[in-house]
Amino acid sequence: MTEVVEFLKDPAETLKVGDGFLLSQVDPDSTPGYVGNKADGRELLAALDGKLTELQERLYARGKFGGPERLLLILQAMDTAGKGGIVSHVMGAMDPQGVQLKAFKAPTEDEKAHDFLWRIEKETPAAGMVGVFDRSHYEDVLIHKVRGLAPQEEIERRYRAINEFEERLAEAGTRIVKVMLYISKDEQKERLLARLDDPAKHWKYSTGDLKERVFWNDYMDAYQAAIENTNTPIASWHVVPANKKWYARIAVQHLVMNALEDFKLEWPAAEFDVAAERRLVEKS
Amino acid sequence: MTEVVEFLKDPAETLKVGDGFLLSQVDPDSTPGYVGNKADGRELLAALDGKLTELQERLYARGKFGGPERLLLILQAMDTAGKGGIVSHVMGAMDPQGVQLKAFKAPTEDEKAHDFLWRIEKETPAAGMVGVFDRSHYEDVLIHKVRGLAPQEEIERRYRAINEFEERLAEAGTRIVKVMLYISKDEQKERLLARLDDPAKHWKYSTGDLKERVFWNDYMDAYQAAIENTNTPIASWHVVPANKKWYARIAVQHLVMNALEDFKLEWPAAEFDVAAERRLVEKS
Repeated sequence: MTEVVEFLKDPAETLKVGDGFLLSQVDPDSTPGYVGNKADGRELLAALDGKLTELQERLYARGKFGGPERLLLILQAMDTAGKGGIVSHVMGAMDPQGVQLKAFKAPTEDEKAHDFLWRIEKETPAAGMVGVFDRSHYEDVLIHKVRGLAPQEEIERRYRAINEFEERLAEAGTRIVKVMLYISKDEQKERLLARLDDPAKHWKYSTGDLKERVFWNDYMDAYQAAIENTNTPIASWHVVPANKKWYARIAVQHLVMNALEDFKLEWPAAEFDVAAERRLVEKS
Repeated sequence: MTEVVEFLKDPAETLKVGDGFLLSQVDPDSTPGYVGNKADGRELLAALDGKLTELQERLYARGKFGGPERLLLILQAMDTAGKGGIVSHVMGAMDPQGVQLKAFKAPTEDEKAHDFLWRIEKETPAAGMVGVFDRSHYEDVLIHKVRGLAPQEEIERRYRAINEFEERLAEAGTRIVKVMLYISKDEQKERLLARLDDPAKHWKYSTGDLKERVFWNDYMDAYQAAIENTNTPIASWHVVPANKKWYARIAVQHLVMNALEDFKLEWPAAEFDVAAERRLVEKS
């Protein structure tokens, strides 16, 4: 295999939301920190699968031996932005035993009868696990704000509640990686048309998608407000340009690898006498 | 890519348990129906990933539109036989959103206070899903029989209960694929030693493994009895020689593909007017 094209700059830095962040200044076509093309990106993604899997296995092994560390990847985006592709192509490389995936849909009656974080708490990852939220508690400050499902003071209460909630998860050992996949309104149109033009994709198309698309600008404002209000040191946001699917995948792969590497985990040491056990096995 | 080496005979037929089956006559080193070597097997596994994923996506799509079909893969085996590898390398190719994996451990106090099928029922796959059981209700007629945790008449009640339970699942649309990964006692020794010789694998080693290994022959008898008593037309057993990991993987991949193909699923038809919707998107 020829040399793969690596990131010039770590996406954990270039895509991290900082002070004065403006979503409107992000170019969804851009590929920050990466000069390669689509073929390079795909090659890089495949080349790092093994490394990602090993990092995840270390986390899982630590969890078995009482380590508190765990990871939570939160994916938010407009429809068709590629959350599903991230789940299949990035997280899909990990050992399914160590991954806890939850796709949050419109809340049930039972869920609506509780605080908005009730259903979220139940799905937070256990020690050693990688949790992935396909949509999340952020829907409660996005669609709820856009469609007026909650008054503004309730939205603001939720920002605070989210920050406290995420801080508590972090204190219990959770590394939180928050990602907004950012596509343009034009790109969404192309992707909706592509779904309509392929009978194998009709099942993915919902006539409800168009209803939300009408509010595109309001959604962008709601994202801006949510990101501003919940971008904390222990749970910062990353806005990933996603018009190029291949770029979004390698970027998120790096964000996850980075977070796992930050744990600096070693394989757990044996809690038994290896040599003695070896003799027993030999004799058995 | 050169031509991949395919199965000469479908493993769904060659590995299926029939009348007069004797576990002791299966050669765990053999590769029934396949003449290729390890490299060929690995190539075949990778070559069919895409097909498996498409079949699974059709199932998932059908489930979204009310189709009752679902799949349940039950994996049983002695320790180190490679259940985890099947989960990562075969099922791992599928979209994680459509896979429901459950590894059954020793039952909790709460689980013990219920009938043995109570915790199993909760984990059965929903319509459209592929369920994977890493160990299962069969533990209740294997370790329980070997270690005398239940009297023989209770074991026999459980065989009957299992058959009725699986029949009910089948009637609700579940295709059940039962697999015993079959390794030899010598191969297990090699694998236990390999774990002990690699510090990155110490966490996978349990001193409890040796305690069960002592009862190897009793386990083989218990498997023989369980297979005989629960090999039904709607949920037949497949004994997969597993001394060669690569063979076990391509064999299980084929069993799963076969079961999915048997559903003969088409992509769901659009429940909306495609042309009209296309015009709306164009204008939006």
